[in-house]
Amino acid sequence: MSDTPLPGARPQPAPGLTPGHAFEAFDLRTVEVPGADWAMEMEITPQVVNSSGVLQGGLLTTLVDLVAGTAIWRGIVPQKGTTTELHVSFLAAARVGPVRATAHVLRRGKRSVVVRVDVHDRGAGDLYVATATLTFAVRPEGTPGTAP
Amino acid sequence: MSDTPLPGARPQPAPGLTPGHAFEAFDLRTVEVPGADWAMEMEITPQVVNSSGVLQGGLLTTLVDLVAGTAIWRGIVPQKGTTTELHVSFLAAARVGPVRATAHVLRRGKRSVVVRVDVHDRGAGDLYVATATLTFAVRPEGTPGTAP
Amino acid sequence: MSDTPLPGARPQPAPGLTPGHAFEAFDLRTVEVPGADWAMEMEITPQVVNSSGVLQGGLLTTLVDLVAGTAIWRGIVPQKGTTTELHVSFLAAARVGPVRATAHVLRRGKRSVVVRVDVHDRGAGDLYVATATLTFAVRPEGTPGTAP
Amino acid sequence: MSDTPLPGARPQPAPGLTPGHAFEAFDLRTVEVPGADWAMEMEITPQVVNSSGVLQGGLLTTLVDLVAGTAIWRGIVPQKGTTTELHVSFLAAARVGPVRATAHVLRRGKRSVVVRVDVHDRGAGDLYVATATLTFAVRPEGTPGTAP
Repeated sequence: MSDTPLPGARPQPAPGLTPGHAFEAFDLRTVEVPGADWAMEMEITPQVVNSSGVLQGGLLTTLVDLVAGTAIWRGIVPQKGTTTELHVSFLAAARVGPVRATAHVLRRGKRSVVVRVDVHDRGAGDLYVATATLTFAVRPEGTPGTAP
Repeated sequence: MSDTPLPGARPQPAPGLTPGHAFEAFDLRTVEVPGADWAMEMEITPQVVNSSGVLQGGLLTTLVDLVAGTAIWRGIVPQKGTTTELHVSFLAAARVGPVRATAHVLRRGKRSVVVRVDVHDRGAGDLYVATATLTFAVRPEGTPGTAP
Repeated sequence: MSDTPLPGARPQPAPGLTPGHAFEAFDLRTVEVPGADWAMEMEITPQVVNSSGVLQGGLLTTLVDLVAGTAIWRGIVPQKGTTTELHVSFLAAARVGPVRATAHVLRRGKRSVVVRVDVHDRGAGDLYVATATLTFAVRPEGTPGTAP
Repeated sequence: MSDTPLPGARPQPAPGLTPGHAFEAFDLRTVEVPGADWAMEMEITPQVVNSSGVLQGGLLTTLVDLVAGTAIWRGIVPQKGTTTELHVSFLAAARVGPVRATAHVLRRGKRSVVVRVDVHDRGAGDLYVATATLTFAVRPEGTPGTAP
């Protein structure tokens, strides 16, 4: 296997997460994918599916947003970002899991960053589940915020 | 006020929702908005915010997807839909709540339906928080499913 | 009729347009639409249709981009903008014309502006042809440019 | 160089194009890119730039739509497609040219096809200019059309 859980990776919920937070339902772990800027895997549990038993689209989008946001923050110049645009094409239903969301930063500007996230169902022959493009308004760490 | 909670509206979780489901964190209610195809309001509780205290973008998108999907199902000809495309522009942070997501069906075809959803923060002077366009692959109720 | 051609409106090509420019094929005029930030109409001529005789999608998108960009420039605080994101949902084919593209600015920030553009086929019972959301990176007029 | 103009490739306008058609302004050629489903290059001439001298965004989008549409048509099972959704992120201005638009089909269903198109400015160090995702409503060749 070319990618392995990072040593420091831990399942959600993060320490300090408010009890009952929606993210408690997310069974997540960070994985290292060569060439990617960030990647996480998520189990398809009964806590995140819809009435048809497939990963609910909005929750899949939440995973995508988390992975993209972390990819930005971990750049050579760390940046804090706010999602401004999000486009997802759903290609197939995710039924088995885990799903893997892999982020690549396409453009890293001073004011905005564009990230691609691709999602595959690892347990279903690596089925291509979704592709997303996100834009973030950013500023370098330590810079006082300004209105976007 | 021109819109009121529907008589039969109830907060999530829906009866039968799996214990611990992410949707248990959503404090939702249906509201009637004249001219709209469907609308719901959601409280901004500690269970759905990010570390900056604002409604998490992926969870806001989940609300948008739920409201759009219900708008389709409740059309004159009921249709079952699967989200195929989702585009969201985030216009402002939602900090106060409740947020109201209002759906209008833009196009209702035999094979696809396009829905606009606009989100406002009712507690922040009706601040315009996000606008989204979603596409669903559909079939009329009772029709056997075919591959999209 | 609630909207009329502006006194100073003129068909493209603009004076000074390079001979043979793609925009010479666009038969455009500005129209005034109450409540809108900018609107233009375009004839569906043989010069802008595809092999099926309908307005070519990319050229329709070009119209949308022109109208949105002008809406920004004409704001209370004039801003120069560069398109950074563009999302179009095509709802129906435009066969008759003219098509009318109507822009509304949804959010006007210091660094970015979001614009909605809706397109209708006036000659086909005002058929709803397309809806688009565009984001522009902006700076106030007179401000030296910085990298986006 | 791993990719070369196809033997039968010819610059636009295609034979039979209406005189004065907007596509006459497009200086296009097909190129073969290993692993891609279709690719074309376009010169940045005075006929397709805006007042800042860069490739006009709507015309770049027109190129993207052409390349994606051709990629679909040339699949193992030829399909005719109508663009239903189009999302473009503009990453950098294209000033030098030629720009190369490269298409990959992400999903080929019976009713819809999703295509990614990436655009690079070959004359500017292969600068990454734009990335797009398009969805097409399709039917196999020879199948009578039905409403989308």
